[in-house]
Amino acid sequence: MRAFAKKDFPVSKIRRFLEPGPIVLVSSAWKGETNIMTMGWHTVMEFEPSLIGCMISSGNRSFGMIRTSKQCVINIPTFDLAKQVVGIGNCSGTEVAKFEKFELTPVKGTKVEAPLIKECYANFECRVVDASLLPKYSFFVLEVVKAHAAASPKVPRTIHYRGDGQFMVSGREVSFRKLFRPENL
Amino acid sequence: MRAFAKKDFPVSKIRRFLEPGPIVLVSSAWKGETNIMTMGWHTVMEFEPSLIGCMISSGNRSFGMIRTSKQCVINIPTFDLAKQVVGIGNCSGTEVAKFEKFELTPVKGTKVEAPLIKECYANFECRVVDASLLPKYSFFVLEVVKAHAAASPKVPRTIHYRGDGQFMVSGREVSFRKLFRPENL
Repeated sequence: MRAFAKKDFPVSKIRRFLEPGPIVLVSSAWKGETNIMTMGWHTVMEFEPSLIGCMISSGNRSFGMIRTSKQCVINIPTFDLAKQVVGIGNCSGTEVAKFEKFELTPVKGTKVEAPLIKECYANFECRVVDASLLPKYSFFVLEVVKAHAAASPKVPRTIHYRGDGQFMVSGREVSFRKLFRPENL
Repeated sequence: MRAFAKKDFPVSKIRRFLEPGPIVLVSSAWKGETNIMTMGWHTVMEFEPSLIGCMISSGNRSFGMIRTSKQCVINIPTFDLAKQVVGIGNCSGTEVAKFEKFELTPVKGTKVEAPLIKECYANFECRVVDASLLPKYSFFVLEVVKAHAAASPKVPRTIHYRGDGQFMVSGREVSFRKLFRPENL
């Protein structure tokens, strides 16, 4: 599998990778066990502090691990990991040790105990900063406390879920920078 | 501009177009005035009822119009509308009548007073169902009460914002349906 050389990335700029809407892998840890889940329902909520909102169904093993540990890592997988992404979303952490089964490498984080997934293009170390929406919506508000991203390529070839087993693969990049007001850039 | 022939689309399936993360246009109406804003921070929250969560900064004219009218329409623009999408995001409804300036056509909704944008690929008529997160996060929870989508093409060529005036254009479609458990489809 592809290995990315990563460097620190500014937490206030992670919208670059998250706002386009890729499917992500969420890794977590609790009492010596780790888990990974596939997640498509997320949004950027603020630049600074760097906030992400996301839905994690309480039926997932990851739900309890993240709620209890108050931490997780949002990992951005690229197209070459598509089969693992689908596989991870189609089995449960109660049955399967996902890092082993999907041959992914856990890497120690700098600010959280949850493991980063080495094979992913970017890793965002997160703390749960608001759990008040869990009872009504299973909606976590996370703060990105440390971000890592591949030095190259400039943008990852991501996969974006449509439901029914169908994915959109990210296409070309276009700049409309000249049409922006400077204060909006 | 391109015109799409649209048909009714099941509200519980709008994730097909929203989960991949496109930039969207949000249209609203209040006291005889209309407005449009560009929005990139949104997520699907539930299938049924069909819920969307989204961030709309209180600095936007649309914020007050949507909060007061408790309605809006989420419109999915395609790549051919990119310049309008950028233009709409770079001026204010306090200065500009956006439908006129950007030569877009308002179409009457069936369940809300807010206008649909005819030139967009899909239109989701929404009601605000939870405003309790506005003070803390400017986060609206919307219910899609009626959806319309183009009969063809099957999926739109959408644009996805990265910040700094840069967009990703949606690429090819891939199916991994065979790798899914039937209950996960």
